[in-house]
Amino acid sequence: MLLPKLSAAPAKEDIVLTHQAIGPYIHRTPVLTSASLNAITGASLFFKCENFQKIGAFKMRGGASAALRLNAQELACGLATHSSGNHAQAVARAAQLLGAPAYIVMPENAPAPKVAATRGYGAEVVFCAPTPEAREQKLEEVVARTGATFIHPYNDWHVIAGQATAAVELIEDAGAQLDIIMAPVGGGGLLSGTALAARYFSPGARTFGAEPERVDDASRAFRSGHIEKNASTDTIADGLRTPLGEKTFAIIRENVDDILTVSEEAIIEAMRLIYERLKIVIEPSCAVPFAVVLAYPERFQGQKVGLILTGGNVDLGKLPF
Amino acid sequence: MLLPKLSAAPAKEDIVLTHQAIGPYIHRTPVLTSASLNAITGASLFFKCENFQKIGAFKMRGGASAALRLNAQELACGLATHSSGNHAQAVARAAQLLGAPAYIVMPENAPAPKVAATRGYGAEVVFCAPTPEAREQKLEEVVARTGATFIHPYNDWHVIAGQATAAVELIEDAGAQLDIIMAPVGGGGLLSGTALAARYFSPGARTFGAEPERVDDASRAFRSGHIEKNASTDTIADGLRTPLGEKTFAIIRENVDDILTVSEEAIIEAMRLIYERLKIVIEPSCAVPFAVVLAYPERFQGQKVGLILTGGNVDLGKLPF
Repeated sequence: MLLPKLSAAPAKEDIVLTHQAIGPYIHRTPVLTSASLNAITGASLFFKCENFQKIGAFKMRGGASAALRLNAQELACGLATHSSGNHAQAVARAAQLLGAPAYIVMPENAPAPKVAATRGYGAEVVFCAPTPEAREQKLEEVVARTGATFIHPYNDWHVIAGQATAAVELIEDAGAQLDIIMAPVGGGGLLSGTALAARYFSPGARTFGAEPERVDDASRAFRSGHIEKNASTDTIADGLRTPLGEKTFAIIRENVDDILTVSEEAIIEAMRLIYERLKIVIEPSCAVPFAVVLAYPERFQGQKVGLILTGGNVDLGKLPF
Repeated sequence: MLLPKLSAAPAKEDIVLTHQAIGPYIHRTPVLTSASLNAITGASLFFKCENFQKIGAFKMRGGASAALRLNAQELACGLATHSSGNHAQAVARAAQLLGAPAYIVMPENAPAPKVAATRGYGAEVVFCAPTPEAREQKLEEVVARTGATFIHPYNDWHVIAGQATAAVELIEDAGAQLDIIMAPVGGGGLLSGTALAARYFSPGARTFGAEPERVDDASRAFRSGHIEKNASTDTIADGLRTPLGEKTFAIIRENVDDILTVSEEAIIEAMRLIYERLKIVIEPSCAVPFAVVLAYPERFQGQKVGLILTGGNVDLGKLPF
């Protein structure tokens, strides 16, 4: 157990300690800039490339942060979660690195490459029917059977502390005082961590969330003051379909300056520009903050803007261009 | 005129001076590694990412090296070349940075984005019929009319000295003594420069060229001892369709250890793996050295291998997967 358990939102010192402890388990990913994207937007953009992170996404930070809170007895019983995305691989890999078993609940219709990748990190994949209720029930069964610790994908102080470290590095490595830091928002683990990191380590910067119009629950929650649901989850930004949790929402309400939404077309165009000009492979969810910069020029022109590119695990056969 | 003109193959000191002089005109591109690609190949691979280079390809190095040899009078008359690829943009951008005009001869059927990109760097594009004879004739006309200096895409000591600097950085930044350095070979500007850099700066390393089976003129020339032609240029690796020049061939004969060829299928599979695991956008020509590592495992297992990824200017709508 390298890190203490947290019972409240991470304080500044918690994030500093978390960053030190997870260091050996993550890459310090590069911050890229592009003269041509700056010329197009009139802003100075700093892209934090978590697509180069271990397991291909920032989720490794939260997974490592959570795993390193477990004592020897807890580790022996293992880690459990439900996810068919990057969080599954993050928990599997973190468990593998610490010599602990991992149990990942996935819907029966999860894509075969995701199942294979998760198993490739040594995890046991437990299938369930593709409904939220079946998923919860199967997870409870797994935890009851194994005694494993459940690592929630985002509504977890330890996970939030881990995700915050991406913005810590962005702030340190940008080489300039950022005016705005922006992250996409799904369940809110990354955005809440980013907002805390900005408040603690770059108090002059504002934090924005970026969200697809079609799953704009976080934007509505930010305005209504309570957690909202999505009527549909039909967006290409498949990492952002989840609603907020009460922990992430509490942090976001208090520390985020605005949440801006963009159309599907804007997300695809932003994604294409990043492939074409930055020459990197990203997931559609990653492109949402840059799409916001393109869609709301008056908010960003002349500003130094840090954008978190969240991951690069994309089906290359299904690129939207 | 920052650099002296060369009348023979670049010596060690020429490459050192060239690297210093072109520094402000190029990016020092990163060297990436991948645990998963190392696991797949059994080698330790170091990818020199010239896809992140200015204008999106290593050609910027040769273009800058050539442009910086011109005196004020020569610069006033401008730079000229024939190319519909990355060399066109490199010469255009180098001229623009030095305040000189550039004249680029392109076939009438050149892709519109290439024409637009070249014009975007301020060059005058001069069209010709799509034959080698028409291209040569049009270039002669342009040079006669303007007094511009012709910058050959590869058969030019100044260009070779510039291309050599990619391997210089790879050798410095790999953080390990490389056993093998490999570059793709088309006209041979990059491979000849790479071989000189290896000889001068990493004498323990062997230099390999990598070539598509379908345009294997360099491999055959390496064995026959004289420049060979290609019967067909039908390869996805469109940067490698050109035969060697006498300057590049002379250096390659003396300094390259072997030239290995791979099938089209192997190139596409290598390209897909680089997108999927390294999360970067590359041109098909770039993937040829990594395809060689996959195709000849006995040559590379247990070795530290530096691979030059040459560029990232690809039509995203035409990816082969």
